[in-house]
Parts: sequence; structure tokens; C-alpha cells
Amino acid sequence: MFAKQELDEILSSYKDFKIATICSHSALQIFNGAREQGVKTIGICTERSRELYESFPYAKPDEFIMVDDYTGIPVDELVEKESILIPHGSLVEYVGDKIDDLAIPIFGNRGSLVYEKSRNKMFEWMHRSGLRTPRVLKPDEIDGPSIVKFPGAKGGKGYIVVHTPEEYYSLVGEDAKTMVQEFIVGVRAYVHYFHSFSTPAGYKTSYGKVEMLGIDRRMESNADEIARQLSVGAKIPISFTVMGNQPLVLRESLLPQYMDMGRGVCNSSKELFGGIHGPFCIETIVTEELEVYAFEISARIVAGTNLLESPYSRYSHGPNYTTGMRIAQELKNAAKAGKLGDIVY
Amino acid sequence: MFAKQELDEILSSYKDFKIATICSHSALQIFNGAREQGVKTIGICTERSRELYESFPYAKPDEFIMVDDYTGIPVDELVEKESILIPHGSLVEYVGDKIDDLAIPIFGNRGSLVYEKSRNKMFEWMHRSGLRTPRVLKPDEIDGPSIVKFPGAKGGKGYIVVHTPEEYYSLVGEDAKTMVQEFIVGVRAYVHYFHSFSTPAGYKTSYGKVEMLGIDRRMESNADEIARQLSVGAKIPISFTVMGNQPLVLRESLLPQYMDMGRGVCNSSKELFGGIHGPFCIETIVTEELEVYAFEISARIVAGTNLLESPYSRYSHGPNYTTGMRIAQELKNAAKAGKLGDIVY
Amino acid sequence: MFAKQELDEILSSYKDFKIATICSHSALQIFNGAREQGVKTIGICTERSRELYESFPYAKPDEFIMVDDYTGIPVDELVEKESILIPHGSLVEYVGDKIDDLAIPIFGNRGSLVYEKSRNKMFEWMHRSGLRTPRVLKPDEIDGPSIVKFPGAKGGKGYIVVHTPEEYYSLVGEDAKTMVQEFIVGVRAYVHYFHSFSTPAGYKTSYGKVEMLGIDRRMESNADEIARQLSVGAKIPISFTVMGNQPLVLRESLLPQYMDMGRGVCNSSKELFGGIHGPFCIETIVTEELEVYAFEISARIVAGTNLLESPYSRYSHGPNYTTGMRIAQELKNAAKAGKLGDIVY
Repeated sequence: MFAKQELDEILSSYKDFKIATICSHSALQIFNGAREQGVKTIGICTERSRELYESFPYAKPDEFIMVDDYTGIPVDELVEKESILIPHGSLVEYVGDKIDDLAIPIFGNRGSLVYEKSRNKMFEWMHRSGLRTPRVLKPDEIDGPSIVKFPGAKGGKGYIVVHTPEEYYSLVGEDAKTMVQEFIVGVRAYVHYFHSFSTPAGYKTSYGKVEMLGIDRRMESNADEIARQLSVGAKIPISFTVMGNQPLVLRESLLPQYMDMGRGVCNSSKELFGGIHGPFCIETIVTEELEVYAFEISARIVAGTNLLESPYSRYSHGPNYTTGMRIAQELKNAAKAGKLGDIVY
Repeated sequence: MFAKQELDEILSSYKDFKIATICSHSALQIFNGAREQGVKTIGICTERSRELYESFPYAKPDEFIMVDDYTGIPVDELVEKESILIPHGSLVEYVGDKIDDLAIPIFGNRGSLVYEKSRNKMFEWMHRSGLRTPRVLKPDEIDGPSIVKFPGAKGGKGYIVVHTPEEYYSLVGEDAKTMVQEFIVGVRAYVHYFHSFSTPAGYKTSYGKVEMLGIDRRMESNADEIARQLSVGAKIPISFTVMGNQPLVLRESLLPQYMDMGRGVCNSSKELFGGIHGPFCIETIVTEELEVYAFEISARIVAGTNLLESPYSRYSHGPNYTTGMRIAQELKNAAKAGKLGDIVY
Repeated sequence: MFAKQELDEILSSYKDFKIATICSHSALQIFNGAREQGVKTIGICTERSRELYESFPYAKPDEFIMVDDYTGIPVDELVEKESILIPHGSLVEYVGDKIDDLAIPIFGNRGSLVYEKSRNKMFEWMHRSGLRTPRVLKPDEIDGPSIVKFPGAKGGKGYIVVHTPEEYYSLVGEDAKTMVQEFIVGVRAYVHYFHSFSTPAGYKTSYGKVEMLGIDRRMESNADEIARQLSVGAKIPISFTVMGNQPLVLRESLLPQYMDMGRGVCNSSKELFGGIHGPFCIETIVTEELEVYAFEISARIVAGTNLLESPYSRYSHGPNYTTGMRIAQELKNAAKAGKLGDIVY
């Protein structure tokens, strides 16, 4: 893994900074937010996508670095331009394990990747954070509807549902490296948090300042219209490819619990790998009994924040405020306080 | 019931007023709205919830009164601090019938409680308002899918669905005090209104000024993901615990009818118990034939308004306007006009 | 069809212009947007609807022209008042083919009507635009769930689903003029575009400037709660009457494709009937494989834009921006540039 010391040398050479990211996932929001905060932006972009990012006057980057595809990040050019790279789901998807070695400041903490790329480590992290999770089942323990997740499945694609050990072995085989989880009955809520480096005086948490910035409900194809298909007699298995997001607010009496969950994740991440910085998300299901189950943590901006404003961002920062703006503001504040090194890695 | 005359004495002792409410349900919105309108706020809060309400700089109350639980309202302290209590669903749930006797000005009209706590009275109110409702069935009249509502069920929790008298008696028994309603096939819409004390000159209604401020769709666990469960073969009965809300707009051609419904509710409430003031909601279902069925009225702010902005609030008051702001504005306007006594009880 | 030359004479007599529309569908938004842009408005209104349009101080028209019903448009009075008519779904529904002959400037291009009122022509238009569509089936080719659309069905009302040729003939008969489409399994997304007359210098499209302003998901009764009905054993066929709209954002990696689709529609419309101007919508379904199927184009403002703000409108024009504002702005810009004649017909 790229050494923190080497990173500090790079940072010490920066007189100012720009925000750079791959043109996908939540890049429009990231560019838009930086623009509103007066921070310059660089879009790492393919020819195919460039026209889209030029189509939005308030969300286009100040500058493009053109690439053939997103597997290679032009690190030297980005560092020369004093860039801080904002990670998002597409960066993780396209660059994969090589993120570890990118010789460039990345907002957040690349140490979280170890926990995100292994489902077992993810569950360890969630349990350490005090989160209630679905039961993880060995194939032979399957005793009802269970969701089978394959390694590295992107955006829910390829998940299947099985009901018995026999069905599992027949569909998946003996040797697959899957994780089988109990199918929790309830309604999903994806809660967006932001962990800031600065703890306001007198703020009552053990770790720092955790903000709640929004909530979404992922739209999955075909799961979110499966009823129509059942109704018309289409015999097509349910699938969970994320195709978009819709806004949601939660019952206010659930929020103290969600704030505890957010703080729990921050605390445990400090113990496990030095802490998370900036946006993160806890993916949950709320049951009929209003019990909250978590099934994943994303240690970076999630696409659900592309909905932009939310009541929770308004309660935190006023109207028309976005996670994209929050990222730029955090970096500016840290730069001013001489603490950029604390929140990038 | 607390005498109106005694209330007037309390009010006459107020030189100014603050907005107070229990820290739950829609309190963040109420505090946020008051802050935007320059009205001071008091949060009645438990230790468990305090951190949440301190987490949102734009929605935290100016002052907390700490309580052990929400069954007891610190009336004397609130009156001493010149508070007007804003009722919401959690107040009704926690304080219950004792609201009648609280010796403090409550925004709205506690006279509505009689109609809200009895489902039969609620249907009487709805019919008097000219609303189309689902058929109410005696157990022996059950002739298809029917929803069984138990007394005092909170947020949809515990509702069940039956199809025959036999199923009813087997699941519910002979002596339960339930209301059985025909299961209406359609899509739900919860419309948020505000009834203002001031009637602008030339405004054409028989009663006053009814504003439409928003619409939501309640998210119920597990009903709003029941299709997934059906699809994967989970044999779990449908349940209706409200866990959150999503925004919705209605076909514009339905709105004249909804405005009539809002005015109908105001008119009938004046006849029945002296009128409602401030926010209220009509819970409806829209059928395939675009017929609108109402199944409940809430005579206070509903949690669906926590979505904040809506096209309808914008058409009424401009961008970024909320029901929380509207409450504070109404109280300010009434105080200025010397009419606070008309809209609190 | 009303001659373009005659239209130019009318336009040349205008010293200024007002925005007029029928009080239904998206009129509140159109009036609200015009007001924010400083353009005067006229509401063509029935007695039944007038009170609604007077209820919203920020969305009521400056002036009403009262009519008995919406089948007759008071063309002479509107022209005398220098009106430009904004078409929307209700105008098309109520006035029908007679729109062709209305002697008044209409924003957009009445030439699109030929393609919108015939489903076969619509599919020709979509294919020419490079859109992927569901298969269109002859009744004898029905080989699975298929949706049967009747001529002129309004807002999805009356659509039925069949599975075999036999079921088709039994329910529909031999001679009906229907279009049968393969039932696509996925989640629907309705994408709102705006085609502007002005092409900024250096803008890279073959045709002009296509903006993406929003996305919605139509709510259909009873399809969008069909799962509840299935779950409780209500044996009621699925139906698709649009009753409202909910906001949606799409996976950002899908957007370049959607931008291509929008440009494709603009390009083909120029070839087929002289081009579309202003707002339009492509109705789509996104499958599990993230393939996008289009099943309709609306060459005018759609009711989904009534949600108002969207991340995409913010990226295009800043916060709190609406399609209604965009329409007024476009007409102002065209008037200033002496090009009103290019974007009305």
C-alpha cells in the first residue's frame, strides 16, 4: 500500500488543491458542489462520456483529462495539477485493488477498502460497530428465503434468492465463494452520513462530528416492479440491479438509533483502520417491528446522494445544500486548518 | 376538559410566545421552521433523544426541558416560559386523553380529539365533510379483502387483512372493538393542508383560507416491499407499520376535488367542534377510475410534511417553504392581530 | 392544417406576448414559471376549476378567460391579447385533432401531432431516433405477457395485459385497432428534456442544445400498489391509470445513453416534421441488464415535471429551477432574438 509518508510529501508540495474524480457515479454532484464552494475541478473522462459532462453548465468540471478507459488513473498529471481524488463507487469498480497503490491523495481512507472488498470483513466491521445484521448462513443452514451474494457483485447485479440447501447447490455449486444472508422482510432505507474532521467545542460524541445528510431508497430492476410481473404472470426471477434512487424520510423516532449507528461505524473504523473521513452510508432494512438491520457500509459517497437536497441536509446546513458541497467545504476547512493530511489517504 | 376561559387568562399573561413541542415525530421541522421565522423554541426531550436534536444546527431548539418520558408534559414550566404547544402524532400517542386537561395553549383545537380517537366518530366527521369513504362492515358482512383496524393502533401497526367472517372471528375473536373496512384497490395519497385564521379579502370560500402545502406517500413495512417477499416465496402476512414517507404529486385534474375535500373538512369541523386551525391531512386512496376515497383525517401536522418543500407549498408561499415555517408564521400573524386566542385551545 | 404563413402574420402583429394555457395538467407550473420570469399569463378556465387556480398566490394566472368546457379554445380573444398557447396533455386530450387548425401561435410544433396520435407512426419516429423499443406484436404472435393499448387511451387508462392469441381475441375481439407490445420486465423512468432554439457557440451536437431537466416515475392505479392486492388475495386485474408522479434519479452511467436518445429524437423530428421545440419526454423501461427500452415520446411538457426541481435542472440552471421557468425563459430569449416564429407553430 502506498505509504502515508510519501503522501505527506506530495501534500506538502501542494500550494492549493483541486477536486478530481472519474466522470461517472456521482461526479456531476461532486463538480456542482465544488463549483458552489469555489473549488476548481478536474474530470477524468472518456470520449464517450465527455458530451454528458459538458451538457450541464453548473456541473461540468473546469478541466478534463481524457482517458481511454477508467482502469488507469493519470496519477502524475493529477498530482502535478495539485488534485485530491474523490473516490466513488465507479472508482472502486473500475480501478479495484490498484487503488491501494495510487500515488495521489484520496479523500477518505484507502484503509477501508480491505473491509469493503471482503463480505466477511464487512460483517466483522458492522458487528464491531454495534449494528444488527441479517444472519449469515452456511449453505447447509439455509432454512427459508435467503439472498446469495457473489464476490464483487456490482450494484446488486447477479444476486439470487434460494430457499433450501438443495436449491443453493443446484444453482450455485459446491465451490463458489458466496455469502448467504437471511432474507429480511421489511423496507430498505439507505442513510447518508458525513464524518467531519472538526469537532465543535462541547459536542457530545466520543469520536467527532457525525452529520446525517440524507436518505434514499434504491430502485432495483426488476425488484421494484416485480409486483407488476407477478400480476401479469411473467415468470421471471427477481433481480436487484440498482438503476436509480428515490428520496425518503424516516419516522423521526428512528433517527436517534440511526445516529448511534453512524457514530458506531466511525468509532469502530478508527480502531480497525484509522477512521473514515467524509461521506459514508449505512444500507438498512426496517422491519414491521421497526427494528433496523444493516447489511452493508459504504465508506464513500453513494449515488443516493445524487438526489441532492434532503430535509436532513437542510437541518444540518440550510436549504439547497448537497453532499457534493459538503465534500468541497470539508477540504477547504481542512486546508485552512493545515489538516488536509488528516482526512486524505 | 380544560376551560377555554382559563386558557384566555393564560394567554393574556403572555407578552410574547415561544413554540414548544415534544422531541419526536416532526419536531425537527417545527424547530427549523420557527427558527426561519424568528420564533424561539423549546424542546421537551428525553436524555435518549437529546443528542439527535443537538445534531442539527438548523433544527435544534433554543432550549431543552428534559423529561423522563413523554407521558408527562411540564405544563407549569412551559406556561411560565410563554409557550404554545404544537401537537403532533407523538404527543397524541404519548399523552393520550390527558391532552384534554393540559393547562397550556395548544395550537389547533383539542376538541378534534374526540373525533380522532373514535373511528366511528371519525367516519361521522368524514361523511359530514362530504368525503367518499370505504364501506364500514360488520364482521358478518365481510365479503372480500377487508382491513381490520384495532382501537388506538399507532402508525398502522397491528392492522390485519381478512376475507371472510370466519377468518375474522378466528383471528380477532367475538368481542374485539375493531373497525372493519372494505379494502379499496388503488394508490394512496396523503394530502397536507393548512387552515389559516385569516381570510384574504375577496377569497371565495364559505369558511376561510385553505391552503394545500404538500402530498406524500407513506412507506409501510412490510407492505411497501411485499412484492419482493411474494416473489421469493416468503410466507409472511402483509403489515402496515409506517416507517417513512416519500414525495408525490397528483394529477392536476384531481386537485379541484381535493380542495373541495379540504374545505369540506374545515366547514364540518366548525359545526362539530368549533373548527380546526393550522395543519391537517386527509388520507386517501385513488382508484383506477380516479375516484378518491378518504379513510382518515389528521387534525394536526403529519410526518409526511417532514419531506419539507413541495410544489404545492411553492405555489402557495414560494421556494423552500415548509409546514413548519407556516405554523410559526400563522402564530406570529395571529399574535400581531390579537387573535392568538382564536387558533389555540 | 393552419398555415405557417398565417401564423407569421399573427406573430408580426404582436408587440409583446403572454403565456396562455388550459387550467389543467401542468398549468400551475406553467403560470408559476412565467411569473418567476416576469411574463404575464392567461388561464383558460372552467367555473369548476377556477377556485383551485385562485388558491395558489404564486401560481395563479394574471387573468382568466372563462369557458364552458375545454373543447373550444377562445382563439380570437387569445390572439387579441397577444397570447402564445402552451400545449400540454390536457390540451391534446380535450381539443384533439382540432389543434391542427387553431389560428394561434402554439409553443412547439403542431406537426408532431401526426406522430403522437398514431402508435404506428410513434414507433416509426422512435426507430428513426435510434431508440430501442419493445417488440410490436401481431395478435397471433403473442407469446407471453403483452400489453394491449387501445387508440387514444388517456393516461394509461384501459390498457390490458394478455398472454396468448386466444386471450387477446376473447378480450379484445377481431377488429379492434390496438397495438400489442411485448411486456418489458424492468423499472420505468420518464426523462424530461428541453430542446432550445439557441445553440451555444462550440456546442457539440448535430442539431442544437438538448437539456435534461428531470426524471420521474409515474404512479399508476392500481399497478403501483398491485402487490398489496396480490398479497391480500384481491382478484382484480392490473390497471395503469396515471394518478401522480414521484421523483427519481438514474444511475449516472446511464445518462450518456439518455442524452444520445434525446438528441436522436430531436434530429429525427427535424427530418420528419420540422423539429420539436421546448419540453419533451421519453418514456422508458430499464431492465436488469441496464438496457433501456423506449415506449413513447411526448412532444410537450409532461405532468412529471410538476415535481419541479430536480438535480438535472439544478445542473443545467441552478437551484429551484423548473420546466415552467424554462418555457418562459425560452420564449423571452426567442422574442428578444426575433426568432419567436422559429419555435411556435
